[in-house]
Amino acid sequence: MCGIFGVSGIENAAQLTYLGLYALQHRGQESAGIVSVSDGIAYQHRGMGLVEDVVDPESLARLPGSVSVGHTRYSTAGSSEVANAQPAMVNYHSGPLSLAHNGNLTNSHTLRKDLEKEGSIFQSSSDSEVIVHLIARSDARDPDDQIVDALERIEGAYSLIITVGNTLYAIVDPRGFRPLVLGKLGDGIVVGSETCALDIVGAEPFRELQPGEWVKIEDGKLTEMPRLARKPAQRCVFELVYFSRPDSVIFGQSVERVRRELGRQLAIEHPAVGADCVFSVPDSSNAMALGFAAESGITPEHGLIRNHYVGRTFIDPGQSNRVNKVKIKFNPVRHVVEGKKVVVIDDSLVRGTTSQALIKMIRQAGAAEIHLRIASPPITGSCYYGIDTPDKELLIGAQKTVPEIEEHLAVDSLGYLSLDGMLKAAGNDPSHYCHACFSGDYPIPCEEEAKEQAAQTAARRTITV
Amino acid sequence: MCGIFGVSGIENAAQLTYLGLYALQHRGQESAGIVSVSDGIAYQHRGMGLVEDVVDPESLARLPGSVSVGHTRYSTAGSSEVANAQPAMVNYHSGPLSLAHNGNLTNSHTLRKDLEKEGSIFQSSSDSEVIVHLIARSDARDPDDQIVDALERIEGAYSLIITVGNTLYAIVDPRGFRPLVLGKLGDGIVVGSETCALDIVGAEPFRELQPGEWVKIEDGKLTEMPRLARKPAQRCVFELVYFSRPDSVIFGQSVERVRRELGRQLAIEHPAVGADCVFSVPDSSNAMALGFAAESGITPEHGLIRNHYVGRTFIDPGQSNRVNKVKIKFNPVRHVVEGKKVVVIDDSLVRGTTSQALIKMIRQAGAAEIHLRIASPPITGSCYYGIDTPDKELLIGAQKTVPEIEEHLAVDSLGYLSLDGMLKAAGNDPSHYCHACFSGDYPIPCEEEAKEQAAQTAARRTITV
Amino acid sequence: MCGIFGVSGIENAAQLTYLGLYALQHRGQESAGIVSVSDGIAYQHRGMGLVEDVVDPESLARLPGSVSVGHTRYSTAGSSEVANAQPAMVNYHSGPLSLAHNGNLTNSHTLRKDLEKEGSIFQSSSDSEVIVHLIARSDARDPDDQIVDALERIEGAYSLIITVGNTLYAIVDPRGFRPLVLGKLGDGIVVGSETCALDIVGAEPFRELQPGEWVKIEDGKLTEMPRLARKPAQRCVFELVYFSRPDSVIFGQSVERVRRELGRQLAIEHPAVGADCVFSVPDSSNAMALGFAAESGITPEHGLIRNHYVGRTFIDPGQSNRVNKVKIKFNPVRHVVEGKKVVVIDDSLVRGTTSQALIKMIRQAGAAEIHLRIASPPITGSCYYGIDTPDKELLIGAQKTVPEIEEHLAVDSLGYLSLDGMLKAAGNDPSHYCHACFSGDYPIPCEEEAKEQAAQTAARRTITV
Amino acid sequence: MCGIFGVSGIENAAQLTYLGLYALQHRGQESAGIVSVSDGIAYQHRGMGLVEDVVDPESLARLPGSVSVGHTRYSTAGSSEVANAQPAMVNYHSGPLSLAHNGNLTNSHTLRKDLEKEGSIFQSSSDSEVIVHLIARSDARDPDDQIVDALERIEGAYSLIITVGNTLYAIVDPRGFRPLVLGKLGDGIVVGSETCALDIVGAEPFRELQPGEWVKIEDGKLTEMPRLARKPAQRCVFELVYFSRPDSVIFGQSVERVRRELGRQLAIEHPAVGADCVFSVPDSSNAMALGFAAESGITPEHGLIRNHYVGRTFIDPGQSNRVNKVKIKFNPVRHVVEGKKVVVIDDSLVRGTTSQALIKMIRQAGAAEIHLRIASPPITGSCYYGIDTPDKELLIGAQKTVPEIEEHLAVDSLGYLSLDGMLKAAGNDPSHYCHACFSGDYPIPCEEEAKEQAAQTAARRTITV
Repeated sequence: MCGIFGVSGIENAAQLTYLGLYALQHRGQESAGIVSVSDGIAYQHRGMGLVEDVVDPESLARLPGSVSVGHTRYSTAGSSEVANAQPAMVNYHSGPLSLAHNGNLTNSHTLRKDLEKEGSIFQSSSDSEVIVHLIARSDARDPDDQIVDALERIEGAYSLIITVGNTLYAIVDPRGFRPLVLGKLGDGIVVGSETCALDIVGAEPFRELQPGEWVKIEDGKLTEMPRLARKPAQRCVFELVYFSRPDSVIFGQSVERVRRELGRQLAIEHPAVGADCVFSVPDSSNAMALGFAAESGITPEHGLIRNHYVGRTFIDPGQSNRVNKVKIKFNPVRHVVEGKKVVVIDDSLVRGTTSQALIKMIRQAGAAEIHLRIASPPITGSCYYGIDTPDKELLIGAQKTVPEIEEHLAVDSLGYLSLDGMLKAAGNDPSHYCHACFSGDYPIPCEEEAKEQAAQTAARRTITV
Repeated sequence: MCGIFGVSGIENAAQLTYLGLYALQHRGQESAGIVSVSDGIAYQHRGMGLVEDVVDPESLARLPGSVSVGHTRYSTAGSSEVANAQPAMVNYHSGPLSLAHNGNLTNSHTLRKDLEKEGSIFQSSSDSEVIVHLIARSDARDPDDQIVDALERIEGAYSLIITVGNTLYAIVDPRGFRPLVLGKLGDGIVVGSETCALDIVGAEPFRELQPGEWVKIEDGKLTEMPRLARKPAQRCVFELVYFSRPDSVIFGQSVERVRRELGRQLAIEHPAVGADCVFSVPDSSNAMALGFAAESGITPEHGLIRNHYVGRTFIDPGQSNRVNKVKIKFNPVRHVVEGKKVVVIDDSLVRGTTSQALIKMIRQAGAAEIHLRIASPPITGSCYYGIDTPDKELLIGAQKTVPEIEEHLAVDSLGYLSLDGMLKAAGNDPSHYCHACFSGDYPIPCEEEAKEQAAQTAARRTITV
Repeated sequence: MCGIFGVSGIENAAQLTYLGLYALQHRGQESAGIVSVSDGIAYQHRGMGLVEDVVDPESLARLPGSVSVGHTRYSTAGSSEVANAQPAMVNYHSGPLSLAHNGNLTNSHTLRKDLEKEGSIFQSSSDSEVIVHLIARSDARDPDDQIVDALERIEGAYSLIITVGNTLYAIVDPRGFRPLVLGKLGDGIVVGSETCALDIVGAEPFRELQPGEWVKIEDGKLTEMPRLARKPAQRCVFELVYFSRPDSVIFGQSVERVRRELGRQLAIEHPAVGADCVFSVPDSSNAMALGFAAESGITPEHGLIRNHYVGRTFIDPGQSNRVNKVKIKFNPVRHVVEGKKVVVIDDSLVRGTTSQALIKMIRQAGAAEIHLRIASPPITGSCYYGIDTPDKELLIGAQKTVPEIEEHLAVDSLGYLSLDGMLKAAGNDPSHYCHACFSGDYPIPCEEEAKEQAAQTAARRTITV
Repeated sequence: MCGIFGVSGIENAAQLTYLGLYALQHRGQESAGIVSVSDGIAYQHRGMGLVEDVVDPESLARLPGSVSVGHTRYSTAGSSEVANAQPAMVNYHSGPLSLAHNGNLTNSHTLRKDLEKEGSIFQSSSDSEVIVHLIARSDARDPDDQIVDALERIEGAYSLIITVGNTLYAIVDPRGFRPLVLGKLGDGIVVGSETCALDIVGAEPFRELQPGEWVKIEDGKLTEMPRLARKPAQRCVFELVYFSRPDSVIFGQSVERVRRELGRQLAIEHPAVGADCVFSVPDSSNAMALGFAAESGITPEHGLIRNHYVGRTFIDPGQSNRVNKVKIKFNPVRHVVEGKKVVVIDDSLVRGTTSQALIKMIRQAGAAEIHLRIASPPITGSCYYGIDTPDKELLIGAQKTVPEIEEHLAVDSLGYLSLDGMLKAAGNDPSHYCHACFSGDYPIPCEEEAKEQAAQTAARRTITV
């Protein structure tokens, strides 16, 4: 997954991008980068790690200009190396071009093969570099048309921010998998993956790009571009369930409100009658726990405390059997759980390994009964549209039945929210959501190569260390 | 404030200390350090910054042995420099000695002058170095007696972990300002400022040191030492209100339970009849908000979201007037507050600057009414016992009346919890708490020099850059 | 200027490359990089600074395989940024390709324009990236032919080491401006700019590539490739005068022997009758001073001592008028020069600024007379073939006559070696040398753009910070 | 060994100290440090590594004032850790005190034991900390007298620079083992181990401290202090043979001149009749080779080239048997040595390991005969006065006879300079030199503990990592 951010028409644009990336850090912690443009010259800074590790005052000072693009990345295609950090930046016949991509292309393997045949050279194993080549290879003279040429050839999920010279483009694919929101700040315009990134710089959100919409922004002035070929909307429901920040509004929905409603639906579908208290696995499930409590009448509590200072902790292998790694991040509150029948709310179950460790800790702290409630359906398949779900064999919801999971996690009961319940809570027309990872309804087929080899194939040939 | 941690009788003790410091990181972020002892040789590693910045696998590998002491520091006396980072480590006639101190001495200025007159040299400006000199200067031959000699001369707040050779001592001053808890792990013993630090390493808390108690631990075996001269207990109530982690049990109380009770008392004293929802300033006031909600029947919500990735953010001075610094850390949830009468719960009001910015943000997000409730009384004086409260002139509670603060913060109403209400929630005998910063009842007078010059005087003469 | 190094058919090739780059550090200190190839996968590590700053054991450990290419760079075209650090590494239809280039193309500007028109995108402002694109764009299926296609289009100076998959190519342009030497090590082959780089890894030099020669090396087996179109040889005489290390043998000549002979010729052309002693500006002129002494009978001495610890020294601007920057690097030996008529030998005069400071220092140390002897002719023009001479306006030999320079430098006499004298000392057929910077006889015209804008134009559009 | 430097009465004194340490870097590469004093406040910065690694513009900017002391260290007593880096800096009753020490105390073990008994605590394992304690423990009120009290108790080799408040002291022990030179710069005074450190800052050397002399400098004004108790001078002859820089003048002698004379004496004692050429192991023996050549009439050459870029080179253990470590630093010039009878000059033979590798390399480059000439006598014992010679068992001159060494090194002949020859070349009264490491005549007995345990005992108890 990735977070993208752009600025047009505001001095020291890179400073705003830096703040915007801070607010989007939850969307990707592997690498970060900023491009700025001043007088038609593009400047780039990127590196591995968190925004605070990559960007410092010195690097910001070397990123002048009133146009800027930023990116935080958690790899979905392409290996973990600085060559894959975005924004990408190149020179081509129409000037310097930079590109930040959130999503995943489903036909990048074929396109890459074709481009290589025509003599293109690739610096990275990222699918995003394909888009850059397609733009540069277009016969069109105008960047607008070059971009259309490229977009007509790519398939899959993409929210893009592109600069060509001083012009900035914000683009959402025809199905609209990933969010992209526009905000106004003084005479300029700010674009970001979520509204929380507009909030941090004080920009006023004024429009969300709908599926297939794209705009051109020159010096803070917005031009509407002709909509891309219409396809059925496929907003990613997992953005609401887990990925986005609760203070954001995306797909027209308050994430916090949706999550509270998910908790409420969960309480309706899987009440835990007679329980003493309900609490979340902080922080992503906090709103769901409050919703569950409100609907069920069970007392809300804080039964697990999260240590927010946890960073790059390392554990001596010689100690690792003694130390519970999950304990470094979470600790139960004994007085809350001891002797109690507790309801634990989590947003989703992926591998189940963290949950297993948490349940064990809660049990050791003295809980009498543990009822696990998951505010989304079982995850049964990988995502090909930009979220890094593990392979099917590693997904507990794909491998085990509910009774098996109850046993595996050692909970007294387990309840998953239904697909309908989730979509109901998500607001909007249910048909406008992609829920492939839960339902198996994949709206776009994905090349086998892209599936299996996405990262591997491409990455296999060159690695920057 | 500081966090201290010790281990005796467990191989690779430094690795456990490292984890313990992670759990105590909230008690001090300025510097961190670990000493280990192996075969009578002491090894030290310390530096400025967070535990994760200071300690790495290489430095841990160079800290062998089954005895270890660790420290995280937020300076209260002594300037911000590595020479003041603890644990202190020196050689003296009885071998290598290390010391980690949480608290603040009230007579260190006089003691230091005396020691200098006798020919002592000082490396740091920290009050803790005075204790080291007093031990080394003792005429006693046995370290136990040397330590008694030193403790008889110092006044103030001190929870100490000391090693002399392979022996570890855990000490709490006669008034017991700061917590210190013992845990059992296999054949060894672990000591830490809070139980959360025992939990992270899997140790079982079995005893909290009472005021004036101290123990000697040799290879995991505990010996009771004769109690220090008895004085009235003065447990720091602010540890429960704000400082300690909610998952800890200190002074015999669950911090989470005390905080929930503080919220409940607050709702009794200052109900906010007719409000639509109540939420906390996360995360220190979370439990208080749930307590307030439970007592008042007002719906609990999450109205403010905290960005947990925020680290060393820097803002270009040229942008600083445009960017609200508090916004980098907190963002309101518009759908929760818009058009609503909201109750905002905070644990305490110090300067009031953050609160002012938060209230403004909540107002801009559309709140109809804002009722601020503080789960402790007005802070009217500095702490001389280890908490870094600012000078009286900067304390809003010392400078303004409630109506003036309401106006200053632009809230519709403000309610502070009463002293009695706070002590009631805190459990224990109310006379056993120090509440000097709220009530002005200072249990020990502090030297004028120590007050005004604590940091300055000492630091003035040498500075390590 | 740059140093290049390659290995084929030897395990842990990157470790050898690392050592080879150490021996070639004098050819470029701006950036360093290593590519290795293992099982058809290429790995890259590069960065700004010296080899010892860029490469560490961790990065070496991530460069597996028995094929490797390395590069140290001092920019001649392209700005100072990591995107321009070599070896370049890309993927194209025939696999991963890496390239290390020593030299400078004279028609890169036109080629780049053409390539951009055809849709190529550029990551760097280096002229070397043009070669990569030309190879990838070739219609040929075989890498051998693709490389021929590229070489037929480029003009100028190039010694190249290229890998395509596991195959390594070593190439010298038809005029042979820059050296490239092959050595045998066990079952493998090593290639380097100078023999000193073969010596450091214990390889036996067995062949120097002649102008227009190129070879293909697969797993340590060498295949002769058809010679490039013949052109008159233009070996760079400045490699012998200044650039190469004295322990190297290049162009069939021992650099140490040539330099001693340059000193001898200088003594014949410009004796300094009656002088008390002769000494060099260490270390590049050491051999010349011994040659001068041997021929003239004047006593050789060490009159200037060079501080070899000098690195990134910085001087406080407030002190800069007081501190002689040259003094940080050189110091005269008072007892050697005091009251003496001294002959100072230098290899060449570029701007004259360092010489002026040195002469002043020697004078202050008490020299009675200073006779400056330069072991090459006046430099009157820039080099377009890979050496970073400054603009003509800054070249003292282009701007001033000998008497003017004597006055400017405040020397008692100045003698430059003649062009004929230099070529005589250089050995080989004089017509096989390029001496354009001394004589103005440029063997290849250089595009105006390449001249003026080489660095600027390209670099103007994107900058990686 | 160590280099020390001090400044009084010059603004931005730390900047000058930084340059002075650059010039003294050859005297110690393990750690570096600078103290400055401004308005009675002392500031310290120190770290492990070279001056260029430890000091940067930011740290210099935090070292204000017109008084400064600097130190570069290669440990002789005390382990390699930052706690031992100098200058030491402490607070005591008379204010902030800093101390930089070159030399080694012979009675530090006893003094340390005594001080510990009296209650002193030690931060480092360095013998220099003893001096600080002795000053602080003095009953005298005036720093002058406190220092006298301390000096009366210490034995051994010490050149010291001390500051107490704004006052700077420069001190040389009664035997004068180590040099210390005073220079004038504007209205201020500069002190350094060698004149080359005065030269770099543009100071005019005006006086060398004689054995037992010490001076007090306040704001650039010098006061003569009463000479210490007279003892026979014992200037370290190894300073002239190897340690000091050739451009320095110490003990009244030009180091370059002495070394040239050593070479001349060597040619007289051990001519190499019939040899084709003579060359040095660069750079410390350069002058000796010229002296040998001049006396013998044998042609001087450069047969070995030293790579001056060599820094922290690391070699993969898997390659280490293949790579000759000495080759990274030195390379023979094949055309100079091939088929020749060569004379190789080195300043001294310690372990003989480097020489063995060099001789092998020269032989492999084709030398017909190799005659090794050493410009000093065999080293037969350790130095207890500040030079880090290895244990006797490791000294080749103490373990083998000349014929055995010839065989061990595989040279055709070996000649050592005689003790008398060395002292004759050294100038001055021969009885004023310490030559204990060559002759076994130790002028001061050294405590057994200090000998064996110097580093170990002290270091054993605490280690800072």
